[in-house]
Amino acid sequence: MRLEIVPLPGLPMVRSGDDLCKLILSACTEANLTLANGDVLCVAQKIVSKAEGRLVQLADVTPSPEAEKLAEETAKDPRLAQLILDESREIMRKRPGVTIVRHNLGLVGANAGIDQSNIEHEGGEAALLLPVDPDASAAALKAQIFAATGANIGVIITDSHNRPWRLGTVGAAIGAAGIEVLEDHRGGTDIYGRDLKVTLINRADAMAAAATLLMGETTEKIPAAVLRGFPPDEHTGCAADINRPIEEDLFR
Amino acid sequence: MRLEIVPLPGLPMVRSGDDLCKLILSACTEANLTLANGDVLCVAQKIVSKAEGRLVQLADVTPSPEAEKLAEETAKDPRLAQLILDESREIMRKRPGVTIVRHNLGLVGANAGIDQSNIEHEGGEAALLLPVDPDASAAALKAQIFAATGANIGVIITDSHNRPWRLGTVGAAIGAAGIEVLEDHRGGTDIYGRDLKVTLINRADAMAAAATLLMGETTEKIPAAVLRGFPPDEHTGCAADINRPIEEDLFR
Repeated sequence: MRLEIVPLPGLPMVRSGDDLCKLILSACTEANLTLANGDVLCVAQKIVSKAEGRLVQLADVTPSPEAEKLAEETAKDPRLAQLILDESREIMRKRPGVTIVRHNLGLVGANAGIDQSNIEHEGGEAALLLPVDPDASAAALKAQIFAATGANIGVIITDSHNRPWRLGTVGAAIGAAGIEVLEDHRGGTDIYGRDLKVTLINRADAMAAAATLLMGETTEKIPAAVLRGFPPDEHTGCAADINRPIEEDLFR
Repeated sequence: MRLEIVPLPGLPMVRSGDDLCKLILSACTEANLTLANGDVLCVAQKIVSKAEGRLVQLADVTPSPEAEKLAEETAKDPRLAQLILDESREIMRKRPGVTIVRHNLGLVGANAGIDQSNIEHEGGEAALLLPVDPDASAAALKAQIFAATGANIGVIITDSHNRPWRLGTVGAAIGAAGIEVLEDHRGGTDIYGRDLKVTLINRADAMAAAATLLMGETTEKIPAAVLRGFPPDEHTGCAADINRPIEEDLFR
């Protein structure tokens, strides 16, 4: 069993309302790739958010006093601070230049996943929010691709994550459909019959990391890639399953 | 450009003193793979540690009073607690069943990377420590493979890491040689000429995660894999570069 990762470079700039399924299928054709059962399509959060109209013009944002205070503490634009507050359940750490939050989706990360690079400005400053429900976005894309091609694929929405103790971003799964997100070995034993300590393996994040090796995290040139070579998963989950329950969080 | 991940299933049980280079080259032959310039060989920490004689028999460990106390707080074997203390600079969090430490290597993780699954017991309980210097292990393996084959490859020593806010382990790089570990875009701009906010991309961890998709983290059956399809890296680094400087740690 070999695994192949095929980048899909042929996607145009994506705009609000674009049909992502159609654009991705065109890019597959351009890459000489026919999607097949068991393929896992990884799509950058950025183009999903754009297609879903999650671009906000900062000129349209009025910062609250709370946002003004956060902006001062973190050296950010108060309008961006307002968006971070709107998108978050909890500010976990703040320093000049750093705002680590628990996003409304349950994800922990910098700036609530709000992105200001590689987005059209249309005259003013803009910011791109995460999709409202990335698992639903993945499931919808999976269903659309099945309807168009008959291929039963997995879909992952990827984002670049920072981590508290390791430098450099790594791709992670913020939305998933049709794949075994967490491979569960609870109750299993090792090859010597000893109980396994490592019981959960995060396949979705590993797939996202693998895909982003070819996706180019800093440019929009390759916002999608296909992983090929896995047998189709019997058990499937969604990316929301990845969030560690808050009562198990030792680093709030 | 497509990326291929080729598992190397043909490795025997590794024991202290084994010649890992020779075993890996045999496994490559069995997998019909001739290592070539630019290939990245990912090897599980477990077999590197075993070859380097890092297996400790717990019967040989005498716990200190400090270890007895830690064992009680974390519901661990006091001898294992002693090994965790010996291998660590700092205990960051402790709860029954959980010990998060900063390892002497600078890595933050559970139980100082000490592993008790899939290791030979030889009558008693045993534990496997991380390699003394995984970057040096990777560099030595790279040099040996170059001497034996003439191929200028990259080498990554992989381990399974837990993360504070995301469930499920993901492969990460704890040793590296011959690859660009952190891809640095500082000073770069996005496709609209805006300064890039994401300036460092951790390629080594993404490669490790990709390889462990096929390596099978819970059994020792596939302890190595080869990534093929990258152009050889001009700038190289080591895995120690990944550790976020302690003064930037917001979650001590």
